[in-house]
Amino acid sequence: MSSALNYRECHFKREFDGGAELPFQRENTMKENRYDDEIFFRKYGEMARSRYGLAGAGEWLELKKLLPDFTGKRVLDLGCGYGWHCKYAADHGASDVVGVDLSQRMLGRAMEQNTAPQIHYHCAAMEDLTFSAGRFDVVFSSLAFHYVRDFSPLVERISDWLRPGGELVFSVEHPVFTAYGSQDWYYDSQGKILHFPVDNYYYEGKREAIFLGEKVVKYHRTLTTYLEALLRNGFSIHHVIEPQPPAEMLGQPGMLDEMRRPMMLLVSATKGC
Amino acid sequence: MSSALNYRECHFKREFDGGAELPFQRENTMKENRYDDEIFFRKYGEMARSRYGLAGAGEWLELKKLLPDFTGKRVLDLGCGYGWHCKYAADHGASDVVGVDLSQRMLGRAMEQNTAPQIHYHCAAMEDLTFSAGRFDVVFSSLAFHYVRDFSPLVERISDWLRPGGELVFSVEHPVFTAYGSQDWYYDSQGKILHFPVDNYYYEGKREAIFLGEKVVKYHRTLTTYLEALLRNGFSIHHVIEPQPPAEMLGQPGMLDEMRRPMMLLVSATKGC
Repeated sequence: MSSALNYRECHFKREFDGGAELPFQRENTMKENRYDDEIFFRKYGEMARSRYGLAGAGEWLELKKLLPDFTGKRVLDLGCGYGWHCKYAADHGASDVVGVDLSQRMLGRAMEQNTAPQIHYHCAAMEDLTFSAGRFDVVFSSLAFHYVRDFSPLVERISDWLRPGGELVFSVEHPVFTAYGSQDWYYDSQGKILHFPVDNYYYEGKREAIFLGEKVVKYHRTLTTYLEALLRNGFSIHHVIEPQPPAEMLGQPGMLDEMRRPMMLLVSATKGC
Repeated sequence: MSSALNYRECHFKREFDGGAELPFQRENTMKENRYDDEIFFRKYGEMARSRYGLAGAGEWLELKKLLPDFTGKRVLDLGCGYGWHCKYAADHGASDVVGVDLSQRMLGRAMEQNTAPQIHYHCAAMEDLTFSAGRFDVVFSSLAFHYVRDFSPLVERISDWLRPGGELVFSVEHPVFTAYGSQDWYYDSQGKILHFPVDNYYYEGKREAIFLGEKVVKYHRTLTTYLEALLRNGFSIHHVIEPQPPAEMLGQPGMLDEMRRPMMLLVSATKGC
């Protein structure tokens, strides 16, 4: 099971902290910013994706295929965490990279480990950001949108920040994974996995999962909501990928279970011209 | 529970019968054509969607929104069953409608109940069809693609049959619904629904569900496979809808359970010009 965490660990990530100006953000102020909690942050730092960066993230091989050519591009990373993707964009020719995260601790690590002259990190809630229209060529987000309560208004703003023809690439926890809430398997009395439970699928909203001994709040949304928000805002969808664990990881203990239910959804889309 | 069947019944439908020329079709020859089985066909005929047509299908209100203006259009319906959608297209101005189904019994009913001068019904497996390039303006399919083993080759052929800019609209059982196989809830020892089980999600292929006392074979595919097959074949996706039961049906006994997991996926897409 521990090895499986290399792939599975990504189901917890940045949470809201302060700084929110809208009522729905205040709702989560303070209590959900696990990444600024010292113990939680330390445990997060022990995970493969924290220690090894992109190479430690099971979905990276698939996500990488969806990324555009970054040469000369102005890039925004929403929920940038340690800044691995910002660094990747900079190393691949991006001219201007803005990494945004709510957690000061995460950004502290980003500024230690993933710097480049063209990368600028900012501490903010992604819902509070304001940029001029067409400010970016690429908007990217890794496993952060499921912490945002209202997706459609965010997509509207992302569309505004992108130039026509600009690209949006993101990963998010899969609706199958977020629907039930616990994000855990259903076991028999011997502790053996029976299957993964889905429930309350059409009831979108707050879910609480336990991770590292802490409650972590996320927002469940249907696939319909994710994709229709993009389509309604004029995006053309290029790819919708439910990444499987890489073949070379399947031999690891517990990893075969990752073939039993989808955990993530990767999407790439282009803003209409 | 019986009322819920008005919505839920759609999880069984046409199966392969004879006439297949490819090895993978022979695999299912005879044994899966439940719709030509007298008892099964009779039971199917008792269902709301058989008795009341489109108005008896819980997903119709959502599906209808995805349909194009049929005026003057040449339409192909793959797995047309009783022909309700063929008749709808004809009644809404289609100039030429071809309905294809494997079941003689289903087509017999179509020719009794849903006729029009511009509708022509054919008994065939959709995998065996040949049409000239650009023969149709619209290809439609209702809850039939999950009976086809290989989706991508079918999409290639549909793309060929459509004129550039032509539209593909289909409904299919949702990958959440097909993954486990039984298509049933998971119950506690008292028979109370606990949740819906998902398992073997990434293992695509044959599944057996029991319905009306008979094994019914369907093919599970991931969402990735459905959508990427379209994108890879040059389709632009317009809508991806997981239909909820209509609000006016929620008061019926058992219908609230339909809010707990997605059962269908509706997709509309346009062939690239």
